[in-house]
Amino acid sequence: MIIDIHGHYTTAPASLERWRQRQVANLANPAQGPSVAELVISDDEIRDSIEGNQLKLMRARGADLTIFSPRASFMAHHIGDFNTSATWAAICNELCYRVSQLFPDHFIGAAMLPQSPGVDPASCIAELERCVKEYGFVGVNLNPDPSGGHWRSPPLSDRHWYPLYEKLVEYDLPAMIHVSTSCNCAFHTTGAHYLNADTTAFMQCLTSDLFHDFPTLKFVIPHGGGAVPYHWGRFRGLAQELKKPPLREHLLGNIFFDTCVYHQPGIDLLTQVIPVENVLFASEMIGAVRGIDPETGHYYDDTKRYIEAADLTAEQRYLIYEGNARRVYPRLDAALNAKTVQGACYDTVS
Amino acid sequence: MIIDIHGHYTTAPASLERWRQRQVANLANPAQGPSVAELVISDDEIRDSIEGNQLKLMRARGADLTIFSPRASFMAHHIGDFNTSATWAAICNELCYRVSQLFPDHFIGAAMLPQSPGVDPASCIAELERCVKEYGFVGVNLNPDPSGGHWRSPPLSDRHWYPLYEKLVEYDLPAMIHVSTSCNCAFHTTGAHYLNADTTAFMQCLTSDLFHDFPTLKFVIPHGGGAVPYHWGRFRGLAQELKKPPLREHLLGNIFFDTCVYHQPGIDLLTQVIPVENVLFASEMIGAVRGIDPETGHYYDDTKRYIEAADLTAEQRYLIYEGNARRVYPRLDAALNAKTVQGACYDTVS
Repeated sequence: MIIDIHGHYTTAPASLERWRQRQVANLANPAQGPSVAELVISDDEIRDSIEGNQLKLMRARGADLTIFSPRASFMAHHIGDFNTSATWAAICNELCYRVSQLFPDHFIGAAMLPQSPGVDPASCIAELERCVKEYGFVGVNLNPDPSGGHWRSPPLSDRHWYPLYEKLVEYDLPAMIHVSTSCNCAFHTTGAHYLNADTTAFMQCLTSDLFHDFPTLKFVIPHGGGAVPYHWGRFRGLAQELKKPPLREHLLGNIFFDTCVYHQPGIDLLTQVIPVENVLFASEMIGAVRGIDPETGHYYDDTKRYIEAADLTAEQRYLIYEGNARRVYPRLDAALNAKTVQGACYDTVS
Repeated sequence: MIIDIHGHYTTAPASLERWRQRQVANLANPAQGPSVAELVISDDEIRDSIEGNQLKLMRARGADLTIFSPRASFMAHHIGDFNTSATWAAICNELCYRVSQLFPDHFIGAAMLPQSPGVDPASCIAELERCVKEYGFVGVNLNPDPSGGHWRSPPLSDRHWYPLYEKLVEYDLPAMIHVSTSCNCAFHTTGAHYLNADTTAFMQCLTSDLFHDFPTLKFVIPHGGGAVPYHWGRFRGLAQELKKPPLREHLLGNIFFDTCVYHQPGIDLLTQVIPVENVLFASEMIGAVRGIDPETGHYYDDTKRYIEAADLTAEQRYLIYEGNARRVYPRLDAALNAKTVQGACYDTVS
């Protein structure tokens, strides 16, 4: 079974974006709407938006199940206040839930949180609980920089975030550390801000003892860990300078990397440098890089091809494709096991 | 001949740091000093600070010549105003010049610029000219974020920077794009901010047509290019989405990467992915990562070992060690040729 742990609903019907534009236009006067009820998206619209896009590509590439969360660049936590984000997150999460209900064998949800700059992260717990209890979501996306490229929040190791971590641990939910759109003109969103955030988050953990306080907390660092695996020697050396334990012991019980690296040499380095137990298959399809690589004739983000071509054993590939995801996302594992018990045949789409 | 294009004077006598501390303490009342004349460092002190440190390690590792600039983390352009930076840059550059005079076969200077947040980069031209004309410096370090981790400057592609670029082009000086200390608690200086800046700068160039306006401008992106080579497929794909020419054509006539990547798999990826003409030998020794890698028994930053072990031909190694540096730093090439003409025997120290 092939589980893609990193997919966003980037293809939602255009009425979603129009609703958001109205919300943003009325930030100063939220009473002028739009109301949540004004957004009407039918099941057929959702089906169309998925079948011809993500599901088609999953079938073509041979992925079975995607952990599916709201579009990362649209989270835009820097816009408005907590209420703005709360309404927007609720809408986006519900849509991902509906996708998971319409295609239960192929999508399962992960939550966007209603973060807002300067607001206590504990304010996100209600939405988180709703997503777990009512929607059966198996993970969350945590934005380490709700200011959108100004980096005004305390590091992830700060107690600021602890109330949220307590809930993540309680529900056995991993957090993918994922920023949103940059509103800082220095940072291109998908070409700089995303990768920088990955590197930044890793280093915030490295310099701290966060996982001493939360030994079962799990972070997934997307986009192949930003710059981290390429500079693994630098990070090992910095940990040494800082008198931290070796990285494997210090961080790799809690930090995992996805495979959203869009060329063979990058995946080869990732799987060579990072223990395979810490690498989870993902493509972030349909995402930032949608084209076909003229050097290979295949989609840049068809990361399964790179995993297939990497120097890995069948057992290692099993871990990357399925085993690690089941371990890191226990609620996913439970959901899959429940299906099996119910006698549902898990239909591989490849 | 082995040229290390990225060394900083991290081992300057302690009186330098004490002077700076006094300067920072009196920011509000610069009239209270210290004056430049109060900083007295003898030639013997400089010799001691180099011979037992950088030069010793160059001899041990087999590097001949280092392009030497003031300590990057000490530039701290975010502190004080233009006058603060101007005085500090002048002091630091002069020290590097003195190193180059005391050890003319082994060090040649690159300038720190007196940048200051919100100040026109043209204000740096006087110091730049002094460093070229009086000190024989062959490059400059350009900080894309003088705010120190708040990223409040326009992107490198903005006309804001053009007056400086005109001078760089006029003098045929490459700029190493190098940030300084982060005063944003989100970013660890050497573990996040440095690498993020490398990635950010590359993407600022990618999204722009800067090198259309300045076809002979050259940027060296240090630390192996941040996350760029590891995500080369992502960047190729983003360029394609943005309707830019292929990266080789769009950027690689003007952008070069150093080899400050502190483990073998990273160097292997760098030299495999990036055309060898765009890779310049460097170690940033003595810098952020000073320890010995327990996995190899050698210094993490002994990058020559990785180049030696990489799958490269002798001709490719020549380009990385010497040929590319002579091409990218024409004033270095001229200085070396002048030595040869004068009959000075270039003494390899290995």
